[in-house]
Amino acid sequence: MFMEFITGLKAKETKEISDILAQEIAGKVRINGYIHTVRHMGEVAFIVLRKREGLVQCVYEEGVTEANLKELKEGMTVTAEGILHEEERAPQGFEVRLTKINILTSPKEGSMLPLPISKWKMKTSLETKLNYRPISLRNIRERAIFKIQEGIIRGFRDFLYSQGFTEIRTPKIVAGNAEGGANVFKLEYFGSKAFLAQSPQFYKQTMVGVYDRVFEAAPVFRAEKHNTTRHLNEYTSLDFEMGYIDGFEDIMAMETQMLRYVFDFLKAQYAKELKLLEVTLPDTAKIPAVRFDEAKVLVSEKYNRKIKNPYDLEPEEEVLIGKYFKEEHQSDFVFVTHYPSKKRPFYAMDDPADPKFTLSFDLLFKGMEITTGGQRIHDYDTQVTKMMARGMNPEEFSNFLMIHKHGMPPHGGLGIGLERLTMKLLDEQNVRETTMFPRDLSRLEP
Amino acid sequence: MFMEFITGLKAKETKEISDILAQEIAGKVRINGYIHTVRHMGEVAFIVLRKREGLVQCVYEEGVTEANLKELKEGMTVTAEGILHEEERAPQGFEVRLTKINILTSPKEGSMLPLPISKWKMKTSLETKLNYRPISLRNIRERAIFKIQEGIIRGFRDFLYSQGFTEIRTPKIVAGNAEGGANVFKLEYFGSKAFLAQSPQFYKQTMVGVYDRVFEAAPVFRAEKHNTTRHLNEYTSLDFEMGYIDGFEDIMAMETQMLRYVFDFLKAQYAKELKLLEVTLPDTAKIPAVRFDEAKVLVSEKYNRKIKNPYDLEPEEEVLIGKYFKEEHQSDFVFVTHYPSKKRPFYAMDDPADPKFTLSFDLLFKGMEITTGGQRIHDYDTQVTKMMARGMNPEEFSNFLMIHKHGMPPHGGLGIGLERLTMKLLDEQNVRETTMFPRDLSRLEP
Repeated sequence: MFMEFITGLKAKETKEISDILAQEIAGKVRINGYIHTVRHMGEVAFIVLRKREGLVQCVYEEGVTEANLKELKEGMTVTAEGILHEEERAPQGFEVRLTKINILTSPKEGSMLPLPISKWKMKTSLETKLNYRPISLRNIRERAIFKIQEGIIRGFRDFLYSQGFTEIRTPKIVAGNAEGGANVFKLEYFGSKAFLAQSPQFYKQTMVGVYDRVFEAAPVFRAEKHNTTRHLNEYTSLDFEMGYIDGFEDIMAMETQMLRYVFDFLKAQYAKELKLLEVTLPDTAKIPAVRFDEAKVLVSEKYNRKIKNPYDLEPEEEVLIGKYFKEEHQSDFVFVTHYPSKKRPFYAMDDPADPKFTLSFDLLFKGMEITTGGQRIHDYDTQVTKMMARGMNPEEFSNFLMIHKHGMPPHGGLGIGLERLTMKLLDEQNVRETTMFPRDLSRLEP
Repeated sequence: MFMEFITGLKAKETKEISDILAQEIAGKVRINGYIHTVRHMGEVAFIVLRKREGLVQCVYEEGVTEANLKELKEGMTVTAEGILHEEERAPQGFEVRLTKINILTSPKEGSMLPLPISKWKMKTSLETKLNYRPISLRNIRERAIFKIQEGIIRGFRDFLYSQGFTEIRTPKIVAGNAEGGANVFKLEYFGSKAFLAQSPQFYKQTMVGVYDRVFEAAPVFRAEKHNTTRHLNEYTSLDFEMGYIDGFEDIMAMETQMLRYVFDFLKAQYAKELKLLEVTLPDTAKIPAVRFDEAKVLVSEKYNRKIKNPYDLEPEEEVLIGKYFKEEHQSDFVFVTHYPSKKRPFYAMDDPADPKFTLSFDLLFKGMEITTGGQRIHDYDTQVTKMMARGMNPEEFSNFLMIHKHGMPPHGGLGIGLERLTMKLLDEQNVRETTMFPRDLSRLEP
């Protein structure tokens, strides 16, 4: 009566090239992929196929390969069969001498590629690349960027699992917002007013009460009207939050160890992409930490720059702090600690030694903030008092305050902007370069 | 000048209980956690601590333990020191005889717990559990649910990585929506009209053109006005999409193998939680597949039920199909294939043998749809023709059609509702039981 039983993956008659790549080179293989380029050389032709593993050089030979060479065009997808041979001039160190090539699909007749994706470096403006994102990502260098980004997120998760963290899923449609301010997207929710979550802040603190240590890697939304090279209106936030800390230094220590793990993981698992993009992994053996107010003085003195705003770091100051610690301590990273209380959210714990400052930090990477973190208030009365001092109504936050009311361990955590971290790691000049499908003031598509 | 160098995790003087649990039981240990219960027994008292690993029994003994027993109350967090002893009656098979216990934090004075979280089974209504979600999740059984859910998502990712899939991040704020219909949340986006993504459909198809095989595990949003035990307005969708398929059976085969891996992974890594919730893992050795139209006839005949709507499955029919294949083939799963074209989206590939049906499937688990998948149209003209036949304007989809225009391999994929899969695995009656912070018609908080 019914069609069949599905028992799992089908056995293939011949070896797939994907299975071969890690193994010895020998014998007859099957391969599929996009036609990346066709280069005619008289009686032979080089047909380079684009596969998930990279480019594979195939050789068409007249009288040997069953196919009509004239039909084969860039952008087609094909299946092919052939014999694998070592060939040191080929991109992978081997080539497939084709016995047969079979067209699977074709692009629309007469369609012209909007940008030269088969070129090694496309030399195309960012604007054009983003307008044609579905196609520009097919370029070998472009797609390597997002493989490395995958590696960062995998390393982040793997490390945190190993440290006893639990992965959580928190809602993105929320009734109130943790970070305050006007930078929030509004939404009609069955007759109620709702927002898109600016961060998982309330929920991750909540889940520390459940699992002690938690993390989430998920989208967050900021309705900021900044049109800069480092702002996005939707980005991926790598968040963790941990209980039973002795101080916010525990969080910086966990981040340091995490970054070290991530870079080691990239080195081991994404060596091909690192090489392709000529990435030098930064040293994380020890990361300097400096107080916010001291950092301002340091760069003011060294670079002869007047301090304009004592309560915030201007982007230019971040750049100079990065420069200072690179020059003086050969570090691409620097923790800036003890941010002024008035620039930190209401859940930040003030420094008992001087409540004008908080037990908090940013991590700068090559002169740009990629992480914000700190210790949070765990005591109910302290939290309510701080809210009221800011003119907030604690009753509006009763769901959040439930955790303080019924007991929370000392805790803190951080959020890392994945796209910014990737941007600085790859020495890109615009965060859109390291965002798969960026959302900004003027860009809602593709 | 600066505070210190952060080199990584601090060394602890004594062993942490978390490090011990997997190791031999011996010697002096440190432990931290919530006070879960205090049971007075004359000169001794049992203090059970709640930690991420579970409950740990500690023994207070007068004259031995440095602490004021009267001060210790449920909901406090503490650090303690003691000597580890085997004790078969304790939850973990050992207990800590306390030498010292130190209060870290306290709940608000006089606050009464809204529900009995230290009870084994809370016997609390779902409504109450959800109203006090931040606290109810602290219950041992509640939190085990979401550890298993973590296991499912980890297994999903691990398996797909092993099969050459690339993890992608697609935008949740979008200009158009793949699934059509009115069930979409609207959003003001800097003066433009935007939507919350109902699925990553366009983007995951796009990324098949880049990486051949891709997946994403991320939130999706449906503005459905259903108030049922199986609908959510925000849920986690486990999506994958793969190119170079021979047919949609390849996708069902990949899902079958993935589910098998996930259940093996749970068995190996989440045995404690499975045991705690008394979960029996389903058999996935072979999953039956039946055509949509045949399935309707089968249950109509066996259960003597009139076919009302030939183009869709009613929830009751899904239940009966599940029942049929459980009774006749001892399978908790069944693939229902070849859904009618008019009930599937415009990107679904019609069956060339009978274009009234599509090359698509749902997977039912214990009588409920947990997956929708199928082969997609890859050819530009075919896609444009199908759109126009539905009265759609292809120009509005030019970003999506870019991939068809410049060539796509034969491809298809699926989306799995994580919370539903968890619900059916745990034999829960309401999907809200297996959603950390559910969003529905009436619930936007906590």
